[in-house]
Amino acid sequence: MQITILGGGGFLGRKLAARLAHDGALGGEAVTGLTLFDLQEPPAPSAPFPVRCLGGDVADPVQVAKAIPPGTRVVVHLAAVVSAQAEADFDLGLKVNLHGTLAVIQACRTLAAPPRVVFTSSVASFGGGQEARLEDDARQIPGNSYGAEKAAAELLLQDASRRGFLDAVNIRLPTVIIRPGRPNKAASSFVSAILREPLLGLSTDLPVPEDFAVWICSPRRAIDWFLHAMTMDTAPLGLDRGINPPGRSATVGLMLSALESVAGPEARALVRHAPDPGIQAIVEGWPASFTAERARRLLGFSEQESLEEIIQGFIEDDLAATRAERGL
Amino acid sequence: MQITILGGGGFLGRKLAARLAHDGALGGEAVTGLTLFDLQEPPAPSAPFPVRCLGGDVADPVQVAKAIPPGTRVVVHLAAVVSAQAEADFDLGLKVNLHGTLAVIQACRTLAAPPRVVFTSSVASFGGGQEARLEDDARQIPGNSYGAEKAAAELLLQDASRRGFLDAVNIRLPTVIIRPGRPNKAASSFVSAILREPLLGLSTDLPVPEDFAVWICSPRRAIDWFLHAMTMDTAPLGLDRGINPPGRSATVGLMLSALESVAGPEARALVRHAPDPGIQAIVEGWPASFTAERARRLLGFSEQESLEEIIQGFIEDDLAATRAERGL
Ligand SMILES: NC(=O)c1ccc[n+]([C@@H]2O[C@H](COP(=O)([O-])OP(=O)(O)OC[C@H]3O[C@@H](n4cnc5c(N)ncnc54)[C@H](O)[C@@H]3O)[C@@H](O)[C@H]2O)c1
Ligand SMILES: NC(=O)c1ccc[n+]([C@@H]2O[C@H](COP(=O)([O-])OP(=O)(O)OC[C@H]3O[C@@H](n4cnc5c(N)ncnc54)[C@H](O)[C@@H]3O)[C@@H](O)[C@H]2O)c1
Repeated sequence: MQITILGGGGFLGRKLAARLAHDGALGGEAVTGLTLFDLQEPPAPSAPFPVRCLGGDVADPVQVAKAIPPGTRVVVHLAAVVSAQAEADFDLGLKVNLHGTLAVIQACRTLAAPPRVVFTSSVASFGGGQEARLEDDARQIPGNSYGAEKAAAELLLQDASRRGFLDAVNIRLPTVIIRPGRPNKAASSFVSAILREPLLGLSTDLPVPEDFAVWICSPRRAIDWFLHAMTMDTAPLGLDRGINPPGRSATVGLMLSALESVAGPEARALVRHAPDPGIQAIVEGWPASFTAERARRLLGFSEQESLEEIIQGFIEDDLAATRAERGL
Repeated sequence: MQITILGGGGFLGRKLAARLAHDGALGGEAVTGLTLFDLQEPPAPSAPFPVRCLGGDVADPVQVAKAIPPGTRVVVHLAAVVSAQAEADFDLGLKVNLHGTLAVIQACRTLAAPPRVVFTSSVASFGGGQEARLEDDARQIPGNSYGAEKAAAELLLQDASRRGFLDAVNIRLPTVIIRPGRPNKAASSFVSAILREPLLGLSTDLPVPEDFAVWICSPRRAIDWFLHAMTMDTAPLGLDRGINPPGRSATVGLMLSALESVAGPEARALVRHAPDPGIQAIVEGWPASFTAERARRLLGFSEQESLEEIIQGFIEDDLAATRAERGL
């Protein structure tokens, strides 16, 4: 099976590539080749199959077509400009998040057989805010450009699926914690930072109150969902290619308590309250909870770990590499 | 007040231009200029203000910028490739319905003050089918490319409004009957044809059963809604710029009874049953009814006429011109 990961050099793209390299197979079938595509040529994991690494712009149809060669069976489209950056630079967000997806559709359409496309949409494409517990048929009324671009991209991929150009699964990812490396330009960056930075022995700012609730998932679970979405039967989806996966709703206070139970009160003490109205204005619109019934009961998406397990997972998978990357 | 109508040569664009020319004012303010833009240079109504008529492609940002000169206060964006055509030619639909809207956003963004943009989305952006009576918060799950492009365009205009580039009102128009002239490439063309053709003394095909229900409105009401949307206070809309206006749900059988009551049994006898699975496959997904509470109670959109009044309106406004146009 020939696979392409667009945005293969990012947080989740690298993890997915590493997992495929480790497993050597997907859905019981051997992986025969993997293409990783990102702005900068991504690093290749050592794998039992050939790995092609390409640098390029996902908004350029020619480069995207090269990244999705004939015979490609699965495309995982993760390439994106994240929330705060798309808010700061409207044209860049539109280019990457909308025109990039159009380029993916056009490239898939030229293949002899329609490939599975796993697309990562976002909780940020919904409104509702702290009081929300969204049902599966909730409308997307995004309060930020990133979310609007993701929701529009979902509609276009959904239509392309109906037409038989490709076969899309649009996963509206929760905020994935704990993100390794450095703080990034996502408005939700703090949700990882308040756990990661203390685990590195560093202090960090909390821009929202402790009772602020966030819809989260772990990177381990996100990768499990991708693997499931890459091979699942899409017939039960019908026209509706949007999936709200079973994340977890947790307040910042609960996350900090889990941090304390795993790493002690001195870790928690490194988190400083520093309200930031700019960040709050973006994230307070995002819904704090989903029922996620369809993904759970009908579609077989796996449940979330506990907060303690999520923190433990970061320590096992990413803490050492993050230390090394940041020279700590 | 300086106004631009994109798609100003089409069915509703011409009617709106004629109405503005007749009124000379909008919302109590004098119209100081009108630009009509369409693929072919549209005809100018005789008006108490200057009318500029431009031919061009709405997907071309340079031409759209010319159609929306500095000082433009209101843009009515009607330019579109209709449902059956967008289904037959995917690239054309995407170009006009999606990229065209992006060009409108970019042109508006360069103006000193954000203009009101009235955009016509469609009932075809919803699913639900014959059983549906959609609430105002219903999700758009389009079953056709035209609907997907309209829903995506709505999201982008909504976000552009939030950012202050423009101030959009996205009206999801019902099927507007009775369309003058000739049958067109919209899948819903028959809904007008079964009334118009008999009024012209011509026979016509009914591709669906008589108990098939359609969500309709009259052109008179559509124009009233446009005029309202061009000047209404958009503050009550908040983030949500999508409006399901108060159309009317009517079965084909009821429409034919109204035809009979206005034009006699010999008119009704000109309608032949000729089931068409291709047309049915598109239109049977469209919802047959909406509650339209928000538009009715909160936003002041006017109610529909009776079916008999709609037929009478066509006879008064459009029958002679249609006869002349078709050489009858
Ligand atoms: N991590 C989260 O919390 C989260 C939450 C919701 C949705 N998502 C979505 O999941 C996907 C993966 O998330 P992530 O955390 O790995 O993001 P990331 O930012 O780590 O990875 C995205 C990758 O896309 C690449 N990219 C950006 N512009 C590009 C361009 N023009 N051409 C090619 N590549 C380009 C970036 O270089 C980056 O490597 C993204 O689509 C993101 O929007 C992530
Ligand atoms: N009439 C209906 O029943 C109905 C129902 C729902 C939504 N709508 C929407 O309302 C709007 C107006 O409807 P209408 O019935 O007047 O449609 P219409 O087809 O009569 O008018 C649309 C106009 O857009 C023009 N156009 C097409 N491609 C163009 C391009 N590339 N550049 C510039 N102009 C272009 C066409 O020439 C045409 O004059 C459309 O956006 C339509 O999608 C109409």
